[in-house]
Amino acid sequence: MAWQRPDGRQSYQLRPISFQQNFTRFAPAAVLTKCGDTQVLCSVSVTQGVPKFLEGTGKGWLTAEYRMLPSATPQRQEREFLKLSGRTQEIQRLIGRSLRAALDLEAIGERTLTVDADVLQADAGTRTTAITGGFVALAHAISTLLQQGVLERSPIIGQVAAISVGLLQGEPFLDLNYIEDVRAEVDFNVVMNQQLGIIEVQGTAESGSFSRTQLNSLLDFAQKGIQQLLIAQREAIANWNDLYQG
Amino acid sequence: MAWQRPDGRQSYQLRPISFQQNFTRFAPAAVLTKCGDTQVLCSVSVTQGVPKFLEGTGKGWLTAEYRMLPSATPQRQEREFLKLSGRTQEIQRLIGRSLRAALDLEAIGERTLTVDADVLQADAGTRTTAITGGFVALAHAISTLLQQGVLERSPIIGQVAAISVGLLQGEPFLDLNYIEDVRAEVDFNVVMNQQLGIIEVQGTAESGSFSRTQLNSLLDFAQKGIQQLLIAQREAIANWNDLYQG
Amino acid sequence: MAWQRPDGRQSYQLRPISFQQNFTRFAPAAVLTKCGDTQVLCSVSVTQGVPKFLEGTGKGWLTAEYRMLPSATPQRQEREFLKLSGRTQEIQRLIGRSLRAALDLEAIGERTLTVDADVLQADAGTRTTAITGGFVALAHAISTLLQQGVLERSPIIGQVAAISVGLLQGEPFLDLNYIEDVRAEVDFNVVMNQQLGIIEVQGTAESGSFSRTQLNSLLDFAQKGIQQLLIAQREAIANWNDLYQG
Amino acid sequence: MAWQRPDGRQSYQLRPISFQQNFTRFAPAAVLTKCGDTQVLCSVSVTQGVPKFLEGTGKGWLTAEYRMLPSATPQRQEREFLKLSGRTQEIQRLIGRSLRAALDLEAIGERTLTVDADVLQADAGTRTTAITGGFVALAHAISTLLQQGVLERSPIIGQVAAISVGLLQGEPFLDLNYIEDVRAEVDFNVVMNQQLGIIEVQGTAESGSFSRTQLNSLLDFAQKGIQQLLIAQREAIANWNDLYQG
Amino acid sequence: MAWQRPDGRQSYQLRPISFQQNFTRFAPAAVLTKCGDTQVLCSVSVTQGVPKFLEGTGKGWLTAEYRMLPSATPQRQEREFLKLSGRTQEIQRLIGRSLRAALDLEAIGERTLTVDADVLQADAGTRTTAITGGFVALAHAISTLLQQGVLERSPIIGQVAAISVGLLQGEPFLDLNYIEDVRAEVDFNVVMNQQLGIIEVQGTAESGSFSRTQLNSLLDFAQKGIQQLLIAQREAIANWNDLYQG
Amino acid sequence: MAWQRPDGRQSYQLRPISFQQNFTRFAPAAVLTKCGDTQVLCSVSVTQGVPKFLEGTGKGWLTAEYRMLPSATPQRQEREFLKLSGRTQEIQRLIGRSLRAALDLEAIGERTLTVDADVLQADAGTRTTAITGGFVALAHAISTLLQQGVLERSPIIGQVAAISVGLLQGEPFLDLNYIEDVRAEVDFNVVMNQQLGIIEVQGTAESGSFSRTQLNSLLDFAQKGIQQLLIAQREAIANWNDLYQG
Repeated sequence: MAWQRPDGRQSYQLRPISFQQNFTRFAPAAVLTKCGDTQVLCSVSVTQGVPKFLEGTGKGWLTAEYRMLPSATPQRQEREFLKLSGRTQEIQRLIGRSLRAALDLEAIGERTLTVDADVLQADAGTRTTAITGGFVALAHAISTLLQQGVLERSPIIGQVAAISVGLLQGEPFLDLNYIEDVRAEVDFNVVMNQQLGIIEVQGTAESGSFSRTQLNSLLDFAQKGIQQLLIAQREAIANWNDLYQG
Repeated sequence: MAWQRPDGRQSYQLRPISFQQNFTRFAPAAVLTKCGDTQVLCSVSVTQGVPKFLEGTGKGWLTAEYRMLPSATPQRQEREFLKLSGRTQEIQRLIGRSLRAALDLEAIGERTLTVDADVLQADAGTRTTAITGGFVALAHAISTLLQQGVLERSPIIGQVAAISVGLLQGEPFLDLNYIEDVRAEVDFNVVMNQQLGIIEVQGTAESGSFSRTQLNSLLDFAQKGIQQLLIAQREAIANWNDLYQG
Repeated sequence: MAWQRPDGRQSYQLRPISFQQNFTRFAPAAVLTKCGDTQVLCSVSVTQGVPKFLEGTGKGWLTAEYRMLPSATPQRQEREFLKLSGRTQEIQRLIGRSLRAALDLEAIGERTLTVDADVLQADAGTRTTAITGGFVALAHAISTLLQQGVLERSPIIGQVAAISVGLLQGEPFLDLNYIEDVRAEVDFNVVMNQQLGIIEVQGTAESGSFSRTQLNSLLDFAQKGIQQLLIAQREAIANWNDLYQG
Repeated sequence: MAWQRPDGRQSYQLRPISFQQNFTRFAPAAVLTKCGDTQVLCSVSVTQGVPKFLEGTGKGWLTAEYRMLPSATPQRQEREFLKLSGRTQEIQRLIGRSLRAALDLEAIGERTLTVDADVLQADAGTRTTAITGGFVALAHAISTLLQQGVLERSPIIGQVAAISVGLLQGEPFLDLNYIEDVRAEVDFNVVMNQQLGIIEVQGTAESGSFSRTQLNSLLDFAQKGIQQLLIAQREAIANWNDLYQG
Repeated sequence: MAWQRPDGRQSYQLRPISFQQNFTRFAPAAVLTKCGDTQVLCSVSVTQGVPKFLEGTGKGWLTAEYRMLPSATPQRQEREFLKLSGRTQEIQRLIGRSLRAALDLEAIGERTLTVDADVLQADAGTRTTAITGGFVALAHAISTLLQQGVLERSPIIGQVAAISVGLLQGEPFLDLNYIEDVRAEVDFNVVMNQQLGIIEVQGTAESGSFSRTQLNSLLDFAQKGIQQLLIAQREAIANWNDLYQG
Repeated sequence: MAWQRPDGRQSYQLRPISFQQNFTRFAPAAVLTKCGDTQVLCSVSVTQGVPKFLEGTGKGWLTAEYRMLPSATPQRQEREFLKLSGRTQEIQRLIGRSLRAALDLEAIGERTLTVDADVLQADAGTRTTAITGGFVALAHAISTLLQQGVLERSPIIGQVAAISVGLLQGEPFLDLNYIEDVRAEVDFNVVMNQQLGIIEVQGTAESGSFSRTQLNSLLDFAQKGIQQLLIAQREAIANWNDLYQG
């Protein structure tokens, strides 16, 4: 018997997604992104200077930080202090890599954009929500920097969104929530661009293994989900046509 | 010439205060507290066990953590990692001490309540907002624990609220915002209980010194502000009369 | 024009792989694994006890540590101290996850196997070499524990090997060396089991994106490489038929 | 019944205070300050340069470090390593703030004065003893720097001393020792200048709360104690009239 | 031309040594040890329990901590925090090893003696002064523990003292001060017992090397110095004959 | 009855020593040094720049790092992380000091040579093997730097080798293995140069003490062992006569 989703969704159905812009007002961009019960505050800020390996190249950089508030989960989680967990570091690196794929780093100049993804509430899919919402915040921040004359032209050369998919009882499901995530046999995170080109794919068998056929079904589901996310993002970015230099 | 408040308030006037309960749904209590443009998410969670010095005494404990999100201020602030700043530690200790004054620790049993005060937006007064909002979250969490049968009787034996006052151009002002805070010659944080008994007073001359007379004016202002906060808290706690064991 | 491999290999050709067992004699297993110029010392040791989340379950655990010697690369690299890089943590987690997929953890009892992958010389593919060689060391260690009577039955229920593949000038290549790795547009690490079921796939576009078709070509190459590695592993494990409980 | 002081003092009476100058000879100033059984070695040293936020301003800085020797208390205390306790950080910041109030930072130039307060023996009141003794050491160090021609004019524009007061059985007592400190219901630390202007006041109710009337009694006591300390300090500073630029 | 000692001593002459007992009164033993201008506060305290490797053996342990106050030297030295320097760790281990050689650890029971050597003033020879003074403090602490009935019999089975010697312009000198220490070509620390048996010898050529003949001259000097220190120690330990179980 | 060596050696006999050069190929020098069952990979690399205290002096520096692989001993040892043990720091400092004694630091220019001594297998004598093998690696690296024209003249002005000696049942033995090391009453490490001048001597009585006569016997043994090591080193350094500037 196939898996019945606890929230009654179809296997190929996303949770409701929303982007609340200007959630706070001091940062250049702050977008509270909700994907079902997962809530991630995605902020973007700008600082002068770049990491050492880019100094003098004229290129900019984008880096990401990811954290959970202790109150984001039913059981309070200790803040990460002294050292970041491997999981947190993997996620930070993934967010950074994915969003850099949307940028012409030369158009930023020697500046660093920092994307802060602070999870206020966690119901699985926090890293993909951080990427999808982080892109909206990034666009918003770029828009602000263009208005302020800090940037002369938009560095946005792509659109990036991400989603999770997984196998439950051998069948593919899109956008797992927490209950599904812990039961999934295979867990995938997929990042794609506006042409559904793949930016990153990470798939892990939590138990057993999976076949090439299953992998292709999972990617079909991911692709469909990301198509919808790309539309939702563009709706949330008022001046998308001005910003996109693709 | 006297100081003109940038937001047009009278010298004795508070900023608007509000308590948004159930801001997130997984923690036992999560209250988004706004005091003007200062926004602090106050969450309370419960864990079994107490610090070593209380083991075997039958008493419970309350501890607090305070952090700013990097995006809470116009210039992004680095997360505190590896070590907490002296400022953060002082604030955490103050919040913990103040809220413990509202509790009969024996009525909690050997459990630890953790108050997380995460500043989403900072326009001065974050520590006093954390105390005032933390008390509302604490009452909410106690209410939940009573309903769940975890606690048999309410440990709330007092009500606690806090406010800042300061001297600007030699005159007292209530509830400073950021612009005022950086200009103040003297900066006070005052914590009081339901009878306007003083729980804690901390006053620092940023330049020069202040007289006993000035100290008394500042405390008069603080007292008036706290009277209003106490009313606002009770309005935000639906079942206050059931919880209060004073 | 297509990429010419600096070492003259065909695009689908592995580098020579070898497993030097008993490279040191004090650890239960120590296999110097060479994949071309990449050399990883894979050691396995056993300790009583398991991480907290497994205590009392009767199950065992396998964990991995990965490090580079400072002299492994042309430019000396600082040892990681105080904190591990995100890269190192990702690799450690990947090695651990992959090798656990080969084990029936209940057959280990409440013991922890630690796989140490120390890179003596790095010419790309260190993480996949660590997995492929780590599996041989694991089998060797299990064999020793069976002989010593520590284990009653072999916990090995699968065989695991890993390889990298990448796109260079749009075409797939198997088992990249360092020169190729830095030029690759897309970089994949693939872990498979004895039935070529996928345990893990991680693919990243370093520039641009890649199509579903390209992904499938890359997995075809990976599959062919892993078939050869599985044979090489079994040749290196004298008593494979006794150990394998699949 | 009122509190009987274990050492027979009147409620308004200080413990004997003394300042042993040149306790060690290599530091610019090293004053062993004894307040009853509390002994704090207050040293002052000078380094070129200032913290980042003052670079290029022409102003100097004063910072403080506070530590207890492990042997200062009946039960050996672990040295603080890896992180400072919140208590230590609060005290360091208080000492620094208080002593900076005595200085015209411009007259120091871009130099940093470091006040080290090392507690050799602890019988309560260590932070106030550190401030009172630290001021004597500061004056001594300034005197040396003037003689050496490092400074052209004395930066001392104020005199600063500190004392603790507390409520025991509802009544105020001056300069608590350890036995009193642990029993006090309310604990105050007060820092004043040569005109009895208040630099800092910190008062905490350890149990219950305190009234405005009680607060005023406590400040009356503190004021009387500090008047005596100010005299003792001036007696200990040979060339006070030359140094004081008030 | 031979080295002229800056303080006019003969080459074989010690600096004045003194032991000020009960320098502070809360620790079981606190001996301010002066060797010329070098001043080390040697304290001994006792705690229940032993390190893991001794648990259940019935044996006790002695460990040492060594630190310099920042004000101990003409240029302020940063406190060691987060990590101890190699030098400090070497010294701590040397002090511990040397003083353990004086003890029958079984007579201590499962307790740990901690020797804190805090250098108040440093004019070279701090580690040897810490050992020589630490032994006096140790005897004092043992004496107290016997009086308190904590110990039934004295664990002191040896007497331990230490001194430095060095080569300056090829000739041996005893008990170098700072000026000599930085100029010495060879630097030795020697620890001996009551029978002038060697407990530890550490000799380093700072430049060039030294011959077996020179080594023997240095040990002759060290032996003469230690003979005098052994006498001085016994004079400082009132009840030496009762304590010594040799 | 005298101690019978477990491997049948005479008391004055070294274990077989060998130097496998170019053990890995990316570092400037990598010599796998075996002394019996002790195996240390000694690598040397070069970086521009020197520590602060040498900047602008024109002199170079040599520093050493020492670590054990977790698999080097029968029981897996945790990697040192967060802090180095006192033992590791002592050994690193000893290796660095000893090898610097072989160099004219001015002939290196403002460069830093780093000697990495990674113990692959530990059967006692790891620090002396690291020094003896580190010298061979150093010569090899210098040779490479001369060929590359990085250095104009060889900075090698001495030859350095090291060995351990110890007392077992009161008698001296050369080059202890692990079984002997844990049983030795006295443990010595001796570093000498090409003229058998002593660079460093460190001797510790693990139990009891030792006499001047015993010390001299131990040094006689050490001297004989080092004479053989010096020959073995010169045989392993092809162009010794060109490199040595003694």
